[in-house]
Amino acid sequence: MNQKLSSTLTPLGEFALISRIAARVAPHESVITGIGDDAAVTALTAGMRLLTSTDMLLEDVHFRRAWHDPYTLGRKSLAVSVSDIAAMGGIPRWALLSVAIPSDIPLDFIDDFMRGFLELASENNVTLIGGDTCSSRSGVTISGTIMGEQYPDLIVCRSGAKPDDDIWVTGTLGDAALSLSLLENGASASYPLLSRLLDPTPRVSVALALAEAGLATAMIDVSDGILADFGHIAELSGVGGTIRSADLPLSDIFCSLTAYPSDISCRLALSGGEDYELCFTAGGSNREKIVACANKCGVAVTRIGIVTNYSGVTVLNLDGTPFTALADGFNHFT
Amino acid sequence: MNQKLSSTLTPLGEFALISRIAARVAPHESVITGIGDDAAVTALTAGMRLLTSTDMLLEDVHFRRAWHDPYTLGRKSLAVSVSDIAAMGGIPRWALLSVAIPSDIPLDFIDDFMRGFLELASENNVTLIGGDTCSSRSGVTISGTIMGEQYPDLIVCRSGAKPDDDIWVTGTLGDAALSLSLLENGASASYPLLSRLLDPTPRVSVALALAEAGLATAMIDVSDGILADFGHIAELSGVGGTIRSADLPLSDIFCSLTAYPSDISCRLALSGGEDYELCFTAGGSNREKIVACANKCGVAVTRIGIVTNYSGVTVLNLDGTPFTALADGFNHFT
Repeated sequence: MNQKLSSTLTPLGEFALISRIAARVAPHESVITGIGDDAAVTALTAGMRLLTSTDMLLEDVHFRRAWHDPYTLGRKSLAVSVSDIAAMGGIPRWALLSVAIPSDIPLDFIDDFMRGFLELASENNVTLIGGDTCSSRSGVTISGTIMGEQYPDLIVCRSGAKPDDDIWVTGTLGDAALSLSLLENGASASYPLLSRLLDPTPRVSVALALAEAGLATAMIDVSDGILADFGHIAELSGVGGTIRSADLPLSDIFCSLTAYPSDISCRLALSGGEDYELCFTAGGSNREKIVACANKCGVAVTRIGIVTNYSGVTVLNLDGTPFTALADGFNHFT
Repeated sequence: MNQKLSSTLTPLGEFALISRIAARVAPHESVITGIGDDAAVTALTAGMRLLTSTDMLLEDVHFRRAWHDPYTLGRKSLAVSVSDIAAMGGIPRWALLSVAIPSDIPLDFIDDFMRGFLELASENNVTLIGGDTCSSRSGVTISGTIMGEQYPDLIVCRSGAKPDDDIWVTGTLGDAALSLSLLENGASASYPLLSRLLDPTPRVSVALALAEAGLATAMIDVSDGILADFGHIAELSGVGGTIRSADLPLSDIFCSLTAYPSDISCRLALSGGEDYELCFTAGGSNREKIVACANKCGVAVTRIGIVTNYSGVTVLNLDGTPFTALADGFNHFT
């Protein structure tokens, strides 16, 4: 195959494409059989449990090719799944990647996409072990599956929050939603803000550190908005919570562009999805340990509220009155 | 939610749809945390390795809603992946299912699809542990991931075929391809033939029996056509093979409809995909054991050729001359 002639996938074909991808995957001792057999064979660490999560990204639903260059799209395709393993306190290990691609898509698109995917994999010690490739008649569809592992006692579920626990969040909120809002309104978004939407960083190291230190009672990643995502913790833990909008961590650029404090800034920070920060709960006696643990990982953490023993999530305005008229987090089909 | 009003997905919404699916999943002792957290948590059997495979099915590429009713589509969505675990000699265990669905699709479609998926899961002791649901702007896309397990010594890869091994295949070949050909040409296909295309049976029990008895040196499932799929075994084993077209197992209905023997019958049997039978290789001294093993599982097995120590796969005509002008197996993008 003369690659100079292969400007699209058609002359390359499915099996050559798979070989092309497989050749770029670094081997790992845990992978007994990787890409190329009916199924991948991997060895779990003795005593650990398997963690598994999957995400599907659809063109013009989850991403637009006009906004997402293939390299960052590749990174994000894996980042959203790695974030799920992080949110369990797990160690990311192996990924499967299925892509449906129009036959006339430039080969450069695939190469750049895979470069991004495999770079983020490498940054998180994840090995690609399999997947599927097929021709699509309507846009690019990406389905990624990630597997991780962790000792049973260190796994952090959504169901462990207890009344009077603090509610914490890493990083800043609302940046991805603000970027999306700017793009959707035809405005441009500058790079540090835009990268929060296009190239989110899964919070693996701080999640692992919190899990290994036994500091988090419940944890989730913020993909649907902090309000909806803490709501999942509250529901599964059989508790409620109060979130103080004055304490939401916001970036300087977010504050300046949304004229903080304002209703729109609160809404974006509370209900905007795709920040891929971690929301977790922890006992009040562990505050100093949590800050020290996050500092070691170079990640900011902020207490934004308190778990209650009655159900429902309340948001308090800057002046302490209840915040109303909130949008829900993102929900497909509605 | 009054379900009588929920004729499409829109009033139900994403989270209610997930709950609706989760409520139908039978629990399993190996599943510590199933649907509803950031990642599923499962416990592997001590000493076993993890087997993982994934398949994507696109509307109008892999299936047409006019041909595939949602119930059998649900079954097939899992069957094609279970077949991959079988082909490794593995025990199927857990599945992830991602679906992208137009918002206006009838809720009955999803219910029937899930009924089929979960029935085939139950038949194979597979538990659904997670997935993703999203709204699609163009047709139904299904991405299934299956995990299985097996002891290291019992796993059967594609790479173990040895010169002079017999080449075997389960069941009959070409039925699915003939069904597809009939449908594509506007003809009808009667049910026993049509079910080979729409509702294939993964050969789990015979695959496991062969693996546990140490009888198969290499194995693959026939999804791209026996010629292409044995070709994968040959390539990964560093061998070749001769396949006798006179020995290909064909169903009576296949023979009558393709006017066997004919070029078209040989081509469909050799290059037609989606039969999801098993092709495996085994030492010549094990012939009786293999037949007995397959008989116990109620599956026919047929010797169709011999592994050679030189590369390339040759097909012999009924009269022993080489068969030429073969189509390749299915290959996306070309």
